Amino acid sequence: MNELLNKFKALQDLHLNIDMTRGKPCKEQLDLSMPMMDVLNSKAELKDSEGFDCRNYGKLDGLKECKKLLADMIEVDDENIIIFGNSSLHVMYECLADSFLYGVLGNTPWSKLDHIKWLCPVPGYDRHFAMCEALGIEMINIPMDSKGPDMDLIEKYIKDPSVKGIWCVPKYSNPDGTTYSEAVVKRFARLKPAAPDFRIYWDNAYSVHHLYEKDQDFLLEIINECKRVGNPDLVYKFTSTSKISFPGSGIAALAASPNNIASIKEHLKYKTIGYDKVNQLRHVRFFKDLNGVKEQMRKHADILRPKFELVNEMLEKELKGIATWTKPKGGYFVSLYVDGKAKEVIDKCKTCGVKLTEAGCAYPYHKDPSNAHIRIAPSYLSLDEIKLAMEVICLAVKIEMAK
Amino acid sequence: MNELLNKFKALQDLHLNIDMTRGKPCKEQLDLSMPMMDVLNSKAELKDSEGFDCRNYGKLDGLKECKKLLADMIEVDDENIIIFGNSSLHVMYECLADSFLYGVLGNTPWSKLDHIKWLCPVPGYDRHFAMCEALGIEMINIPMDSKGPDMDLIEKYIKDPSVKGIWCVPKYSNPDGTTYSEAVVKRFARLKPAAPDFRIYWDNAYSVHHLYEKDQDFLLEIINECKRVGNPDLVYKFTSTSKISFPGSGIAALAASPNNIASIKEHLKYKTIGYDKVNQLRHVRFFKDLNGVKEQMRKHADILRPKFELVNEMLEKELKGIATWTKPKGGYFVSLYVDGKAKEVIDKCKTCGVKLTEAGCAYPYHKDPSNAHIRIAPSYLSLDEIKLAMEVICLAVKIEMAK
Repeated sequence: MNELLNKFKALQDLHLNIDMTRGKPCKEQLDLSMPMMDVLNSKAELKDSEGFDCRNYGKLDGLKECKKLLADMIEVDDENIIIFGNSSLHVMYECLADSFLYGVLGNTPWSKLDHIKWLCPVPGYDRHFAMCEALGIEMINIPMDSKGPDMDLIEKYIKDPSVKGIWCVPKYSNPDGTTYSEAVVKRFARLKPAAPDFRIYWDNAYSVHHLYEKDQDFLLEIINECKRVGNPDLVYKFTSTSKISFPGSGIAALAASPNNIASIKEHLKYKTIGYDKVNQLRHVRFFKDLNGVKEQMRKHADILRPKFELVNEMLEKELKGIATWTKPKGGYFVSLYVDGKAKEVIDKCKTCGVKLTEAGCAYPYHKDPSNAHIRIAPSYLSLDEIKLAMEVICLAVKIEMAK
Repeated sequence: MNELLNKFKALQDLHLNIDMTRGKPCKEQLDLSMPMMDVLNSKAELKDSEGFDCRNYGKLDGLKECKKLLADMIEVDDENIIIFGNSSLHVMYECLADSFLYGVLGNTPWSKLDHIKWLCPVPGYDRHFAMCEALGIEMINIPMDSKGPDMDLIEKYIKDPSVKGIWCVPKYSNPDGTTYSEAVVKRFARLKPAAPDFRIYWDNAYSVHHLYEKDQDFLLEIINECKRVGNPDLVYKFTSTSKISFPGSGIAALAASPNNIASIKEHLKYKTIGYDKVNQLRHVRFFKDLNGVKEQMRKHADILRPKFELVNEMLEKELKGIATWTKPKGGYFVSLYVDGKAKEVIDKCKTCGVKLTEAGCAYPYHKDPSNAHIRIAPSYLSLDEIKLAMEVICLAVKIEMAK
């Protein structure tokens, strides 16, 4: 133990300042999209394929070619997609807010109900849970394994009509990197919730975010599966280009059944005249088609892959038998599990200048029942920084687990 | 009468197809902002004045320099402004939705109240009214004169605690082109509503949208006036660059008291990680400062002025003594009043291929109590089209008023 503490002291003396809290793309990834800044210059014709001047008001649900691009990306029909602004999180929020204010497809607005519950596969995305908390929705933890959420438990809970939805990040999930198995997606599509206004919020944030082009996870497309089994209105599917082009200056979209899309548009028309079509056109002219997106994602993967491999390498070397962790084939995070010691490890890392997301962040109400989960976000950091951060983390784990 | 009808028949034979329904900028106006497409190319440094990489996540309330630009434009302190996405209409909607879901500064959420009422100066902006209607808010007409809304009536209605707000377009109002007088703004700032969560929705859409640089309307700045008289939280002020740069690809903002801003940010942080900062930077680099905006607005005015003057000229020539109309010094609309005949005139114009906004559009529930108001929107059309459209309109008015 003394040796570990001395080593830790030596790391503390380096006065590190490494922020590993968020899954942000790094500078080199952002640079990949810089040519996009040239595709629309002052000489460009800013008309879409239908002859519409994208600089002016209109086209509430987005440009036809932008719908096609994002629909192809998430494997849905481009008739059943709406292009929004820069944030898929905001689109999810608006779906929730609409449900509270207007109700879902003719059902009672949730603001008129006493109590709304929501299923939350854990660990999950902190911002999903924060949104529920803000809206006063009671969250229920659903454990995840390597195939996805516990479907038995979900099928039990949805018998309660106050359970109105579930968060899912079905591919390279935040933070475990899990992709839901075909059997899990098929059970999702066949859910028969007691609440007619129950919706699966299918946040397909990492649909094309593979680390290994030739060893990708496969995710069954849920909208078509729901349709096929006579459950078409069950799901809202979200995506964005935030981690493809620029976070904050990308394009978000929602896909759903014709019924759901019509209803969402009906409310949307009161909120805005339309989203940023110049930016839609910029994305379409830059990526051209799905192949353009895939090409871009290969470049992202080339930057990210060594970072994820370094994390795994150091965990293998230092923590084998002491802790467990995930080895995702895509997405933005690695989960490290240190049973009963997560808070202690995170606090200890902080004393060494390595900032991790706070303990419990991946759980509703910030309560990790096992105090086990640490979210590792290597994307933003350089390999040198990752190496240092992982040294600190591994050492902190060894010290805390040895106590 | 036969002569009028023959003339109208001759115009019908031209098979016109002129759409005067919306206040959209014309192509020449949009072209004014094309150089903005060059200010951020692939070689540009996309960092803001604080060294922040605008391509990445963050800066929930906007870039410092973008706040300064828009704050200067609407004469407020840049501490008390939030930069949003591309649509001020969407910002207004979110303020309403937040009030329903969370309540205003600790007051009961409106969704928990039986009935919400709203004051609507008329004629007004159709999209404001549509939003209230969608949310089930009861709208109460407040007549306008050349000084602004009837303040006696407003002071009476706000004694009712279920009256929660009022729409105002205080400068070059949509559609009359009225600017509220200093006395009116002072009375607004001194309102003492029974509802502590009453808010003035001050939609300063046309703050710098003058037709005559040397003959501008003056509007007293309301946020400072509210603060000065001890009523700081009474007002939300909205603006955007939609009719300065590109509609749909501009930047929207909200200004309010520190209390209001803090509360709005508190909810905003659950909705999004941030708005499009690259577009914020693009606007700042293009306009540089308020002088840049003013220079741009002079160019807009040079395009719009002849259109508004042509409308007025033709009305003077054809309808003097038959109808009344407004002569705005800014904004996007002219109101034409034909007592009891608006619907008939609008329908008649349609038979001649001139599409006007439907009768009653400028009133809550589309009900113009006098069936008098016709909204004329000359901005999008060429002078030739305006001339033809006005010939049709004037003739239709003469025919209908003579019946």
